Amino acid sequence: MASSINLAVIPGDGIGQEVVAQGLKVLNAVLPQDVKLETKEYDLGAQRWHRTGETLPDAELEALKGHDAILLGAIGDPSVPSGVLERGLLLKLRFAFDHFINLRPSKLFPNTATPLAGSPEIDFVVVREGTEGPYTGNGGSLRTGTEHEVATEVSLNTAFGVERVVRDAFERAAARPRKKLTLVHKNNVLVYAGHLWKNTFDKVAAEYPQVTTDYLHVDAATIFFVTQPERFDVIVTDNLFGDILTDLAAAISGGIGLAASGNINPTGAFPSMFEPVHGTAPDIAGQGKADPTATVLSVALLLRHLGYEAQAVRIEDAVSADLAERDGTARTTDEIGDALAVRVAG
Amino acid sequence: MASSINLAVIPGDGIGQEVVAQGLKVLNAVLPQDVKLETKEYDLGAQRWHRTGETLPDAELEALKGHDAILLGAIGDPSVPSGVLERGLLLKLRFAFDHFINLRPSKLFPNTATPLAGSPEIDFVVVREGTEGPYTGNGGSLRTGTEHEVATEVSLNTAFGVERVVRDAFERAAARPRKKLTLVHKNNVLVYAGHLWKNTFDKVAAEYPQVTTDYLHVDAATIFFVTQPERFDVIVTDNLFGDILTDLAAAISGGIGLAASGNINPTGAFPSMFEPVHGTAPDIAGQGKADPTATVLSVALLLRHLGYEAQAVRIEDAVSADLAERDGTARTTDEIGDALAVRVAG
Ligand SMILES: CC(C)[C@H](C(=O)O)[C@@H](O)C(=O)O
Ligand SMILES: CC(C)[C@H](C(=O)O)[C@@H](O)C(=O)O
Repeated sequence: MASSINLAVIPGDGIGQEVVAQGLKVLNAVLPQDVKLETKEYDLGAQRWHRTGETLPDAELEALKGHDAILLGAIGDPSVPSGVLERGLLLKLRFAFDHFINLRPSKLFPNTATPLAGSPEIDFVVVREGTEGPYTGNGGSLRTGTEHEVATEVSLNTAFGVERVVRDAFERAAARPRKKLTLVHKNNVLVYAGHLWKNTFDKVAAEYPQVTTDYLHVDAATIFFVTQPERFDVIVTDNLFGDILTDLAAAISGGIGLAASGNINPTGAFPSMFEPVHGTAPDIAGQGKADPTATVLSVALLLRHLGYEAQAVRIEDAVSADLAERDGTARTTDEIGDALAVRVAG
Repeated sequence: MASSINLAVIPGDGIGQEVVAQGLKVLNAVLPQDVKLETKEYDLGAQRWHRTGETLPDAELEALKGHDAILLGAIGDPSVPSGVLERGLLLKLRFAFDHFINLRPSKLFPNTATPLAGSPEIDFVVVREGTEGPYTGNGGSLRTGTEHEVATEVSLNTAFGVERVVRDAFERAAARPRKKLTLVHKNNVLVYAGHLWKNTFDKVAAEYPQVTTDYLHVDAATIFFVTQPERFDVIVTDNLFGDILTDLAAAISGGIGLAASGNINPTGAFPSMFEPVHGTAPDIAGQGKADPTATVLSVALLLRHLGYEAQAVRIEDAVSADLAERDGTARTTDEIGDALAVRVAG
């Protein structure tokens, strides 16, 4: 636990600016007086790309390495071709800083709407692999734009990459009361990657006899997300399946406005990055309508990662209390941020 | 519309036998007297594999070609290593018979349980590509079983393969009252395959000005499935995304016991194959507990494919009426089949 935090802030595009401002407000309010918080904002995203054609210049990548952690709002705009910022900025950061744990907790807070009937109990965490699978940019196209085009995408999976995320997931499962870990893959079709994942999972499982294990195909997992979400405790899965499942998880547990995530490098070799799961929502940007709660909860993950466990819990409790006491009146982005800042300080 | 139907039947494993029996019962009941139905059963699946080590011998593949269509129950058993029957039998049939349209309608019938609150309107159809993507078996592993293992899965996509399924989906959308088609992919990450899909979609869209089009990333699509399923009319997507989305679609629209599918080759070069989306459910096999409705609805898709539109509608109406008049009393597989057979005959 550092007595100072040197934080990089990438507000990004759309509602990114607004929600990050609230995240920082709550961070300032929750930190003990003697912890020095330094922040440096990085101007990266759609506007920068339009202005300069740059997504993430080497100098900035280098500078980012010097921080203890990164807080990111959201990246992307309809005016930028699909993939440019995702691959040139967001995924570039995840890969450059070897964020192999993409941590996405799902908890249905009290008094929170879910599209599921009967408000089931939802409290699980998805440990999504962050540096392999179909996300490596490995692929290509031949005779592009002709009727003979062939396009490929290659999912790359290594024993090294799979084992480290599986181990992390077992550690997390072992530390939770229910101690249950579910592997999600599609090993009846993707047999090569599937066998690597399943064999690695089974091998590591032998070291954690206290953890109950389970395997589900990704298609079946989506069924259980909506019919029996209470069956999940910790889920470990590949980069693409994790992407899909965590949006569904967000949807069932209060919506994308509440879903936090951490792109974590547990070795500490590079700064970890924390961001809401939601996108830039250009339709509501600049109107004070965005819910900053997902960003505030991402700040909690950031604090936990840096060793400030008590402060992380304070934020999570504040969010829980704030949601429980909501009365349905619409609140602005700023008002929600203020309410949470007051709670964590109090 | 043939005046005879020469049907291949592959009951398969687990509840496959039971549900196929009901499908045939209803098929017999609905067909006009003057249509001659011939059926030939093929013993394929887990038992056959245990007995002989065979999944789908060439002679049987050849014989299957001679049929007008195939009705399949379900394939698979925990006693068979994952992937063996899926790839050696089910996917082999889909690929050998070039079933490039994997058609999966989702309709929430009246009086039918959905895990979603407020019983939203659900009436959409997923047109899933059936012969490409990550399903081609293209991949491998190196240094298998060691700490240096690398495993790959290659998604193969061709202009030919994408265009034919996209065209089929536009035709289906144009024929429906709402005339809306949504492309689902992940073109911000899988840029090569994504561009091929998106460009093809946009090109074909120009020929269908009457069809409203839309694009969603697969992760976002799962959110809308549970928050706004009524926004969907026809969805076209790749093999893997279609696999995942159609299980979720089944879950929200009455459960996997009601989800029908067709593996269709619209050229007629090979027989098309119809099967419930559910698996073999070994836990309830042989107990008369399986709901045969998904198989019966698959028979409706089969009849529609062969030109028996009126009979297909009769089955769908019978299912709708049967579900509407259910009173919650548990019924056996056989009882449900009987009830539906009576209705379609009546
Ligand atoms: C924006 C996109 C590249 C990203 C992903 O696919 O990982 C997003 O969907 C997410 O889940 O963080
Ligand atoms: C059994 C499996 C190979 C199959 C698939 O992945 O296509 C199934 O999940 C389906 O959706 O029909």
